[in-house]
Amino acid sequence: MNFRAEIDVMPLKELLDPQGKAVEHGLQKLNFKEVADVRIGKHITIKLTADSKEAATAKVEEACKKLLANPIMEGYKFELVAE
Amino acid sequence: MNFRAEIDVMPLKELLDPQGKAVEHGLQKLNFKEVADVRIGKHITIKLTADSKEAATAKVEEACKKLLANPIMEGYKFELVAE
Repeated sequence: MNFRAEIDVMPLKELLDPQGKAVEHGLQKLNFKEVADVRIGKHITIKLTADSKEAATAKVEEACKKLLANPIMEGYKFELVAE
Repeated sequence: MNFRAEIDVMPLKELLDPQGKAVEHGLQKLNFKEVADVRIGKHITIKLTADSKEAATAKVEEACKKLLANPIMEGYKFELVAE
């Protein structure tokens, strides 16, 4: 089976996010006064094949832990879409 | 009303994504042979207030066009979640 994983890797809530802060100020300068709490992370899409949705979930989980996210600074979540 | 916008800004399909390619090779070296077509973009969350979902959608759309995405190289999509 073919899957597409849609992964979000975001800086942990407890940590400052300077890139997000910079964009927040940028938006406010552009007159978006009603925005707050901008945070910026990565969005990763991966296509993969696996025997089942469970196997694909385990694979993506492992890939996040081993390479895609830095657990000290980042959290991740993902969705799998059958293709 | 308070909303949270979950925005994905991704490199356009037509363009090379060197960061995605590097991660794809990295995954394959870590023995994830079944992965392909890795693409990496940004995930942005923004909290905002607006009178209605329509107004919030228009705001986020404008923010994407004016600051968050570079239309020459990137596409965006987003979801609004009421909070």
